[in-house]
Amino acid sequence: MLSMDDALQRLLAQVQPSGRTESVVTALALGRVLAEDVLSPLDVPPRDNSAMDGYAMRVADVVGAGTVLPVSQRVAAGAMPQPLQPGTAARIFTGAFVPEGADAVLMQEQCEALKDPAGGLGQVRIQGAVSAGLAIRRRGEDVRLGERVLSAGARLHAAALGLAATAGRAELTVAVRPKVALFSTGDELALPGQPLGHAQIYNSNRTTLHALLLSLGCEVRDLGIVPDSLEATRAALRDAAGDADLILSSGGVSVGEEDHLKPALEREGRLDLWQIAIKPGKPLAFGEVTSTGRRTWYMGLPGNPVSSFITFLLFVRPVLLRMQGATQLAPRGYLLPAEFAWTKADKRREFLRVRVSEQGGLQLFSNQSSGVMSSAAWADGVVDLAPGTVVQPGQVVRFLPFNELF
Amino acid sequence: MLSMDDALQRLLAQVQPSGRTESVVTALALGRVLAEDVLSPLDVPPRDNSAMDGYAMRVADVVGAGTVLPVSQRVAAGAMPQPLQPGTAARIFTGAFVPEGADAVLMQEQCEALKDPAGGLGQVRIQGAVSAGLAIRRRGEDVRLGERVLSAGARLHAAALGLAATAGRAELTVAVRPKVALFSTGDELALPGQPLGHAQIYNSNRTTLHALLLSLGCEVRDLGIVPDSLEATRAALRDAAGDADLILSSGGVSVGEEDHLKPALEREGRLDLWQIAIKPGKPLAFGEVTSTGRRTWYMGLPGNPVSSFITFLLFVRPVLLRMQGATQLAPRGYLLPAEFAWTKADKRREFLRVRVSEQGGLQLFSNQSSGVMSSAAWADGVVDLAPGTVVQPGQVVRFLPFNELF
Repeated sequence: MLSMDDALQRLLAQVQPSGRTESVVTALALGRVLAEDVLSPLDVPPRDNSAMDGYAMRVADVVGAGTVLPVSQRVAAGAMPQPLQPGTAARIFTGAFVPEGADAVLMQEQCEALKDPAGGLGQVRIQGAVSAGLAIRRRGEDVRLGERVLSAGARLHAAALGLAATAGRAELTVAVRPKVALFSTGDELALPGQPLGHAQIYNSNRTTLHALLLSLGCEVRDLGIVPDSLEATRAALRDAAGDADLILSSGGVSVGEEDHLKPALEREGRLDLWQIAIKPGKPLAFGEVTSTGRRTWYMGLPGNPVSSFITFLLFVRPVLLRMQGATQLAPRGYLLPAEFAWTKADKRREFLRVRVSEQGGLQLFSNQSSGVMSSAAWADGVVDLAPGTVVQPGQVVRFLPFNELF
Repeated sequence: MLSMDDALQRLLAQVQPSGRTESVVTALALGRVLAEDVLSPLDVPPRDNSAMDGYAMRVADVVGAGTVLPVSQRVAAGAMPQPLQPGTAARIFTGAFVPEGADAVLMQEQCEALKDPAGGLGQVRIQGAVSAGLAIRRRGEDVRLGERVLSAGARLHAAALGLAATAGRAELTVAVRPKVALFSTGDELALPGQPLGHAQIYNSNRTTLHALLLSLGCEVRDLGIVPDSLEATRAALRDAAGDADLILSSGGVSVGEEDHLKPALEREGRLDLWQIAIKPGKPLAFGEVTSTGRRTWYMGLPGNPVSSFITFLLFVRPVLLRMQGATQLAPRGYLLPAEFAWTKADKRREFLRVRVSEQGGLQLFSNQSSGVMSSAAWADGVVDLAPGTVVQPGQVVRFLPFNELF
């Protein structure tokens, strides 16, 4: 059996970034993989500006609490101030540029505005302590001109998109969405919504995988359920390979006699069947369809619903991210205490379905069978357990939340 | 100042679920809020079935290692088996129904298939230990007939959708997507992609908020930047209220003289300006536009980019989930060790931008100013720090990952 890490390494050694990119409106680039470095063409903020609504002044002009200064100008955000006349203050608002010569802003809650008998901008009585730099945001404090604010290969979340907009970017160059063709195999499968034949079960893996692919930003072509025959399987592979980057299927990849994917792929391209030392999810098929004159990767997941779900997260997700040139392929885990005991050490690396408790520990789903999809729907994620590990309550284990994996 | 919890309670006391629902193909219901309980109309699996490719048999027929049994039938997944003839075994494949009378399945790796000189199905030599129930998945082990597999109010992730398909559901009834109209205010703002005026900065909040709204499944109508005038603000509010459930804006909600949202909303509906004891993000506006003859909620976020981002996650997200009838509004946090010191105890509840380290601890972004969007783009989430708290390295703190919040 292959270790999970070895299997991943083999996958990622073969699947290279497609290099295909497109330009997308910044806010709509959510979840996409950035295909360029974003450099800032400006300092952010572009000038020193006020962090508060209040008054800008020179610290040297404040001789103590109760100092009264005439107000010589009013600076709103978006306006360009005049240099500050010595011995005066400027009324200023949050985000407005600080006048040249001013070195502090005092928030309005610590100032008293006094009417000017002459009808001008009035005066201000200083009622708080001022010091150089008070409530001033420095030019370039957020981003410096020329600084790389985002790097090629980053997966774009909302804050990163906001930062790109800060640097003036209306559009971003991102990797094109992977196109994935999806099917299930198995004569025992019925379509949800249809009556169930007397030896059938509903096809659920295709729904799970479809949703997972959408959550990773893929374009999905759903080819439905392919009948258990060599010819139907070959036809499905050729059809799927039409314009897809990846063909994904579940079922039909174990060594049982009923599995037609292996001979079908050997005729349409090539296939490796791997036994991976993980639980759930031992069998994984990886290959390519080349009979269409181009190469389309193929990944075949186990038919058991939990195995299919877990192997998607462990193997298909990094492949899809790799195709888009993402740099971060490994999920983020957290070290959290188990609130359960696990005494059945397995020689395979195990992924136990768990939920985070109110206390911040991990609770185990009672039935860890790879056939029990309830466990995955109930769980917040999995514990990643090294081969041969047992767990005592209180022991710290590595938790992978599912939502880090979408 | 209002506490964050009080502010949330006030919001959620007013905003009620819309009750509007629609039917959506199961896989496409990803991220939506379920508006019905999903009950299973069947046992899953519907009958006892095999967890392995192998041979089904009666334990009583196995007299010890080396026992040879004739193979009396072959059961593929999707086929209905005959009752097992006593003293024989059935060739069986993963997922296939176990013949009546068989009480164990032995995996094929522990069996030797023997040719039948008479050309029949052959014989099998038992080379492993069998016990009652071995490798058999019991009827109803995953889901029982009539069991509630998903509850109204659940936000649907991929595994939940798979489970709904398992129960035969081709479509699900979900809450309609909230419609949100979005604008920014501020004469200092320039559109990304346009030349920057000499007292301007780029409008980034609208991009961040747009992406956040998309990640929560909203339909977004982007109204751009509204000029700093009472009439323009009133017109924007009336326009936005046309068919939106919520109007969202950033900027213009502090008490500064340049803010037109308060008088505009007081003419078009009503507005409360709240000072919330959190940092960043103190000011928050909440109100409604009613001048169009219907009610559209309004939420106004601060203009500082980090404040706008954080107040969205803390206040707008739960409101949007509430509108859809979601039951789980609070984000999930993790208790993790700080790898930093924080000595500046603040009387407000603070949300510090941090990243998860390789060691599983939390690293602090060096500049926690509410104007520095780099901090949010860099961070994996925030530490939620109670008022007056200081942090020593190694101390366990509550971490809220951003991606739990989308």
